[in-house]
Amino acid sequence: MPEFLKLIPIQQALNVLLQQMVVKVETERVHTLEALGRVTAEAIRSPIPLPTFPRSTVDGYAVRAADTFGASESLPAYLRLSGEIPMGSSPGFDINPGETGLIHTGGMLPESSNAVVMIEYTQQVAADTVEILRSVAVGENIIKIGEDVQPGEEVIPAGRRIRPAEIGGLAALGILELEVRHKPVVGIISSGDEVIAPDGKLTPGQVRDINSYSLSVLIEQTGGIARRYGILPDQVDALEAACRHALEECDVLLITAGSSASARDLTARVIDQLGSPGVLVHGVSIKPGKPTILAICNQKVVIGLPGNPVSALVIAGLFVVPVVESLLGLAEVGVRRKLIARLNTNVPSQAGREDYVAAKLYEDQQGYHVDPIFSKSNLIFSLVRANCMIRVPADATGLTAGELVDVYLLT
Amino acid sequence: MPEFLKLIPIQQALNVLLQQMVVKVETERVHTLEALGRVTAEAIRSPIPLPTFPRSTVDGYAVRAADTFGASESLPAYLRLSGEIPMGSSPGFDINPGETGLIHTGGMLPESSNAVVMIEYTQQVAADTVEILRSVAVGENIIKIGEDVQPGEEVIPAGRRIRPAEIGGLAALGILELEVRHKPVVGIISSGDEVIAPDGKLTPGQVRDINSYSLSVLIEQTGGIARRYGILPDQVDALEAACRHALEECDVLLITAGSSASARDLTARVIDQLGSPGVLVHGVSIKPGKPTILAICNQKVVIGLPGNPVSALVIAGLFVVPVVESLLGLAEVGVRRKLIARLNTNVPSQAGREDYVAAKLYEDQQGYHVDPIFSKSNLIFSLVRANCMIRVPADATGLTAGELVDVYLLT
Repeated sequence: MPEFLKLIPIQQALNVLLQQMVVKVETERVHTLEALGRVTAEAIRSPIPLPTFPRSTVDGYAVRAADTFGASESLPAYLRLSGEIPMGSSPGFDINPGETGLIHTGGMLPESSNAVVMIEYTQQVAADTVEILRSVAVGENIIKIGEDVQPGEEVIPAGRRIRPAEIGGLAALGILELEVRHKPVVGIISSGDEVIAPDGKLTPGQVRDINSYSLSVLIEQTGGIARRYGILPDQVDALEAACRHALEECDVLLITAGSSASARDLTARVIDQLGSPGVLVHGVSIKPGKPTILAICNQKVVIGLPGNPVSALVIAGLFVVPVVESLLGLAEVGVRRKLIARLNTNVPSQAGREDYVAAKLYEDQQGYHVDPIFSKSNLIFSLVRANCMIRVPADATGLTAGELVDVYLLT
Repeated sequence: MPEFLKLIPIQQALNVLLQQMVVKVETERVHTLEALGRVTAEAIRSPIPLPTFPRSTVDGYAVRAADTFGASESLPAYLRLSGEIPMGSSPGFDINPGETGLIHTGGMLPESSNAVVMIEYTQQVAADTVEILRSVAVGENIIKIGEDVQPGEEVIPAGRRIRPAEIGGLAALGILELEVRHKPVVGIISSGDEVIAPDGKLTPGQVRDINSYSLSVLIEQTGGIARRYGILPDQVDALEAACRHALEECDVLLITAGSSASARDLTARVIDQLGSPGVLVHGVSIKPGKPTILAICNQKVVIGLPGNPVSALVIAGLFVVPVVESLLGLAEVGVRRKLIARLNTNVPSQAGREDYVAAKLYEDQQGYHVDPIFSKSNLIFSLVRANCMIRVPADATGLTAGELVDVYLLT
């Protein structure tokens, strides 16, 4: 009954899965205002130059730069004021040699002007005369047509998750619809004779199903659609039937095993029957989450997660999130940004496996500090109390108080 | 016409606003599965202990610890096997002195047992006899009733943004509904004679409204509801009427000014007429975003944002996001986590103001590196090309290539 798993490092295990998984490309069209968090299905090219006209970047006077050469406070240049350039329309007049026009930030430059003198370095000395106190170079204080974006230029690559900046950029170009990837559908099955639904009444020996809920929202957070298929007993036939049904409707299937070793072995057996090639990885050198199963069954990803809710969330963050990102077509998959923090307490570990320890990060004048939250057997509320996870690298036998460690925020 | 603003540091400006703003507490009840990203309106206490029964954390044998004292590989203890404890129900038998029972991870301990010996340190030598090869202490390999959570204990504080971990914790406790804060409604008005709607056709001198779109989705990302009130010309009466109408329907009003100095001055004048105390801050020592206006009008926050779309997004991140977080009742407001990266290129700056520079962060074996993206006048696609902002502290006259700098991810 003891487990003899061949443990594989996290990155290697993930690569095995990502390399063999089949990504079906399905897309849909959404309004730009509904596209936040969605992933572009194709590169977006600009239909127009941006800006579409030469604009002033300051409040000042539009000039021919040559007319200002040599101008200084002691020896100003004097230009004839031809008028004020209105906002939102063509200037209505041109700048001939020796002439200038009042222009506002964002205003359109008259055709023959090629620079703007900031208002701070000018003085209107008569109704039709402006004193220029500083010279400007050609192109100074203006943005040329197409300086931000050229017509036909790729402005957003395929596989980009849309942020407020992209939505702004699309609005600037007048692009009000875009093609995004479908949200992958991830099925979740909980198993375990001891597990009941969260709305059930507990009798002695029973626990409520945490994983269906926590994994559902993690999947939604990542940009997928979660579908829950209930709780199955530790019974091969029933579990297998439920898995087959779920696999027909989903792109990915997650099975969280009961927590006993026999329940976990049963999950592996069932997964192997769901289709070929079946189980690719059984056992990852990580704590928590060692008995993780990564599989592909008839071109669909199936992941067997530990029953322990903390282990399940940690493993889902490391394996399910990249799988969903990959199905979304994201250009970068599995990127996790780390913060560096000073550790307040020793963290023991074993060499040869990567550990993740729930912890509390805080900032003071000296920077970031982190307090590990030790809990027996990874109780769910240790994670609720945490705002980050400390990573103990595989080659470390522990971390020492005072050293700088890698932490990943829990969001 | 030049601006003479009294510039105030960012944190001081934010504090002025947060201290004077009035937070109206309105709540609603949502299903736990719909609560991701919402903010708890009240502390949540556990109705039950967790676990609800003493559980084994390993696969092994439930024992009275005293029966194992002195046991070793060379001198094992022999215990009588009373049976196997089923998952999901009461053990059905007790452990008398000299007895043991097979138990699985998560199984319920028989009443008189007080420890579990891991299966690795046991051997079943006959149908009814188990050899114990190591002693265990009282409490070893078990979780006691209430060890994760005590009945009545506060498990989630008020003002906490709900993450997958909290959803899991609530499922564990059978809490399927919770009280969360209303989403604050943020109105957005764009102004500027040169600004047209994103779906409009450009004529020379015109630009499309970027800010209504980018700010809308930023507000939704933060947990608010955005309401767009269109684009107003640079005209006091029309702008004021639109603002009054919006303020009746919203908790916060954002006005992005036209980009010329006169348009910005007009915004300040209009805001001052909307109610007392009116403008609190006009001018923040930051680049981009100097001409920011922070105001409270009849107990509602009104923020005048620069018309430049990059400036508007940077300022919204620094001021609008904390205002929405504050209205949501978040315990921590305005917390931004920074990464440390090595700078690839010099970044010039002026002492006395905080600068934010769009940049590209990447990671290699040596850690994080960051490339600033320089762009004239903060063009929107410089932000689209960026994945972070570099912060240049107010006391620095610039940053030097090779130094470690603070960066904030753009999400």
